[in-house]
Amino acid sequence: MCRWLAYSGDPILAEDLLFRPAHSLIDQSLHSRMGATTTNGDGFGIGWYGEGAEPAVFKAIEPAWNDRNLRELAGHIRTRLLFAHIRASTGTPVQRSNCHPFRFDRWLFMHNGAITDFHEVKRDLMLAIDPSLYPDIEGSTDSETLFFLALTFGLTDDPPKAVERAVGLVEDIGHRHGIEYPIQMTVAITDGSSIWAFRHSSAGSSRSLFYSTDVVALRKLHPEVPALRSLGDEARLVVSEPLGDLQGAWNEVPEASWGVVRAGQDELHPFRPAGAG
Amino acid sequence: MCRWLAYSGDPILAEDLLFRPAHSLIDQSLHSRMGATTTNGDGFGIGWYGEGAEPAVFKAIEPAWNDRNLRELAGHIRTRLLFAHIRASTGTPVQRSNCHPFRFDRWLFMHNGAITDFHEVKRDLMLAIDPSLYPDIEGSTDSETLFFLALTFGLTDDPPKAVERAVGLVEDIGHRHGIEYPIQMTVAITDGSSIWAFRHSSAGSSRSLFYSTDVVALRKLHPEVPALRSLGDEARLVVSEPLGDLQGAWNEVPEASWGVVRAGQDELHPFRPAGAG
Amino acid sequence: MCRWLAYSGDPILAEDLLFRPAHSLIDQSLHSRMGATTTNGDGFGIGWYGEGAEPAVFKAIEPAWNDRNLRELAGHIRTRLLFAHIRASTGTPVQRSNCHPFRFDRWLFMHNGAITDFHEVKRDLMLAIDPSLYPDIEGSTDSETLFFLALTFGLTDDPPKAVERAVGLVEDIGHRHGIEYPIQMTVAITDGSSIWAFRHSSAGSSRSLFYSTDVVALRKLHPEVPALRSLGDEARLVVSEPLGDLQGAWNEVPEASWGVVRAGQDELHPFRPAGAG
Amino acid sequence: MCRWLAYSGDPILAEDLLFRPAHSLIDQSLHSRMGATTTNGDGFGIGWYGEGAEPAVFKAIEPAWNDRNLRELAGHIRTRLLFAHIRASTGTPVQRSNCHPFRFDRWLFMHNGAITDFHEVKRDLMLAIDPSLYPDIEGSTDSETLFFLALTFGLTDDPPKAVERAVGLVEDIGHRHGIEYPIQMTVAITDGSSIWAFRHSSAGSSRSLFYSTDVVALRKLHPEVPALRSLGDEARLVVSEPLGDLQGAWNEVPEASWGVVRAGQDELHPFRPAGAG
Repeated sequence: MCRWLAYSGDPILAEDLLFRPAHSLIDQSLHSRMGATTTNGDGFGIGWYGEGAEPAVFKAIEPAWNDRNLRELAGHIRTRLLFAHIRASTGTPVQRSNCHPFRFDRWLFMHNGAITDFHEVKRDLMLAIDPSLYPDIEGSTDSETLFFLALTFGLTDDPPKAVERAVGLVEDIGHRHGIEYPIQMTVAITDGSSIWAFRHSSAGSSRSLFYSTDVVALRKLHPEVPALRSLGDEARLVVSEPLGDLQGAWNEVPEASWGVVRAGQDELHPFRPAGAG
Repeated sequence: MCRWLAYSGDPILAEDLLFRPAHSLIDQSLHSRMGATTTNGDGFGIGWYGEGAEPAVFKAIEPAWNDRNLRELAGHIRTRLLFAHIRASTGTPVQRSNCHPFRFDRWLFMHNGAITDFHEVKRDLMLAIDPSLYPDIEGSTDSETLFFLALTFGLTDDPPKAVERAVGLVEDIGHRHGIEYPIQMTVAITDGSSIWAFRHSSAGSSRSLFYSTDVVALRKLHPEVPALRSLGDEARLVVSEPLGDLQGAWNEVPEASWGVVRAGQDELHPFRPAGAG
Repeated sequence: MCRWLAYSGDPILAEDLLFRPAHSLIDQSLHSRMGATTTNGDGFGIGWYGEGAEPAVFKAIEPAWNDRNLRELAGHIRTRLLFAHIRASTGTPVQRSNCHPFRFDRWLFMHNGAITDFHEVKRDLMLAIDPSLYPDIEGSTDSETLFFLALTFGLTDDPPKAVERAVGLVEDIGHRHGIEYPIQMTVAITDGSSIWAFRHSSAGSSRSLFYSTDVVALRKLHPEVPALRSLGDEARLVVSEPLGDLQGAWNEVPEASWGVVRAGQDELHPFRPAGAG
Repeated sequence: MCRWLAYSGDPILAEDLLFRPAHSLIDQSLHSRMGATTTNGDGFGIGWYGEGAEPAVFKAIEPAWNDRNLRELAGHIRTRLLFAHIRASTGTPVQRSNCHPFRFDRWLFMHNGAITDFHEVKRDLMLAIDPSLYPDIEGSTDSETLFFLALTFGLTDDPPKAVERAVGLVEDIGHRHGIEYPIQMTVAITDGSSIWAFRHSSAGSSRSLFYSTDVVALRKLHPEVPALRSLGDEARLVVSEPLGDLQGAWNEVPEASWGVVRAGQDELHPFRPAGAG
């Protein structure tokens, strides 16, 4: 499967997020603790906002831990919103167009998990994608398919509802193919200002997902940790697994729920796939 | 566009086909004379028959001219049937799954040319592919789509008829989308013993295609050329453009025709796309 | 050989330098007009200044024309000083550590040309490199060797003098090996504020090199060209070959000379390799 | 560090060695049990003998576990002598020229381990390499340096003596630089008929190394294992760690020793680095 990280807050150097933390995402590419696989070496990608409304995306098929370009860029990209993803392929080729995050206009999307027996249901899922969106599909993954289904169901208007409908469709089609548990996922989506995060699996035992504690509260709890002083008050992270072991820093996103991180107040809601019924 | 070469005959070292000739395919990757583009540096691939019934395929996204692995392999692969292809992308990503030749069971397929405005007609073409074949599509090119359409229409039973139907469908769908000249192509197909070659374009001005003169005849014509002595009597090449300037060695495949190279006798026929009508 | 571009001036988006111009560097990677080779597809690199004193470097072994990451980054890197280089290998492997620009602390270096018969003189040249610098050599090119020789001779104190001594040494050692014309080069060097450019060859017929005309003067000459209005007054380009055909925009750097581009006034001087004698 | 495998015996399909065994080398690229690192994902290489006297070498910078070309080739290369290596970089770049096995004429060399503080001693070691061999060095690793030192000391005449002298020199130079334990290694060398294997470390605690039990004896021990029936009587493997758990199949090469596998009789001797003294 995969591991990912989403950050929003005061502009920060990417290396402070990707390389510096104790159990950083780069460290997880070699030694994930909570992932379905220990090694996430089948390519990686980062997406960030800066010039213009559209995010930039840098992706490569090498493992993140040995990619010199990633290290170079991380030391020079300062951004208020960063998505980063390390991949462990579940079968589809290791090629740039299969690396996350995926982009559509100013939106980014990344995924950990899998659509079960994707090979069998792929055609039906592709047929459900809006024909006007279809030509923009570049790769061959279940993840990008899920993204385009969500786009089809109105992602750019109402991300949670669109993802609920997309997942509902994946589960319907999966069940029709006799697949008991059609999907397993954590997902992150952004339009460049808010971050939506989702945790769901048909079997009710989803991949891990955590969000960071409010920095102001955390500083009071740990006045001895200098790294916290350099983080802005609005800094927020959503991650596949905690970046370190700081007591009180990480909160698990509950099973079957979605949340949104944005300026002002965050929210957390139950996630209910919207079946065809 | 692209350039390609197909060989059958006595087992020969790949480098004698790919690197040694004066205007070799590797030379064409930098300096094509007859191609739509001079440079064919967007990946390459070779397929050959040896162990087992299924051919091996080696493909990479680097230019053929600087790939050290290709040079290594060419010096150690001895085969009686070789396909080789150098790519100039017409827009789809440079990734291994988009490199030719494409394989299905013991079949290989490669293509030079393009489906016009592929972006627009892709979904309709994909829908026409047999659902049981659909999951085996790995890349995103017009070429692989054409291959899977031909497979849908019975390529493994009757290659010429299947290609005529596939091309007929591409032209029908293209016309329905208001595209005047929907396809431009030379194609090579093999099952490991025969090679079928096709030359066609909707506009009636197809990419170049040549086949080699019978070696026995050629030796009589050029007793002074030592390379001809080392070639077996059954050696046959079909190429996008001649490998050298030897007088009498190359014959143009006529516009709108297909031929088959096989043990015994070759054939040449008119190519007639089979429209839906 | 290679092609390169160096820019300094008001912060500018990299894509405005690399992709937008008529005969851009990316275009030159496929269709160089003045280069020793038409195709420069053996990797590329860019270096730029932003965060911190050290420049970032992004390099890859794919051709520049089909690299999606380069296109992404070019749209998001805004910098006041950019080096860009496209490579045509003269024999050494196509690998990231052989791509230009090379970096040492806050310095960047790039080169077009070759040390003649590098294979033969390499060991003698390596021995002349300061042992304390030696371990920092990462690749295997003549270009990086030249850079480290210049560093050995005081590049960070006085670039022109150091390059004159480095070239002098290369010519001495070459002559001792019986090589008539030991070096051929255009070189660009920067410390993040000035750009030094060099044009020299032992045979007296160096690769082409041009610098751009003062933007204020150019605007008066061509009030009709909108692109000139968006360039800052201090914008300066040094390039292997002109980016377009604008009359009066490009000035050839004379044979056997070096120049410096910096805030305030530029300079142009004769280049005199400092032999051992 | 790394993992490697060397095979000699009846011609065998590479995939039967690389992919089929329970704890195959490909499996070890993700999950090494005995290596200094669990993951060996920084490139790989194979070398084999077939056409001509010189071996072919196929190397790539992707992890072995996800490389489709390796899988293709493994299914079509049938050889009587195969070297295979998966790399975990100890700092030098992940590039083809740093992948093992290294080749010189008809010789192959691969290494697991490291020269301690290579950065510091590299220049002195390079100076000790025969100037006539120096230009053939292509990469930047400690391993290739060790190979060229052994070539300098007569590898092609007497491999064990040459390696003992090369290691002696590395230890001398290391000690002179104040390095307590200058080298750690298992090494495999072949000329296309014999395989020499070495196990040594300055600290006396070397990386693991095993050789396979005689197949005839093993078949008697395990008449129930079908895989043993398909192996030729002369099949011999030397490996970094056992490929499976078959009782009696693997024998540890003792600390500080070298052995040779060849037609007829094998040998095992103590390894004694030859110091300058």
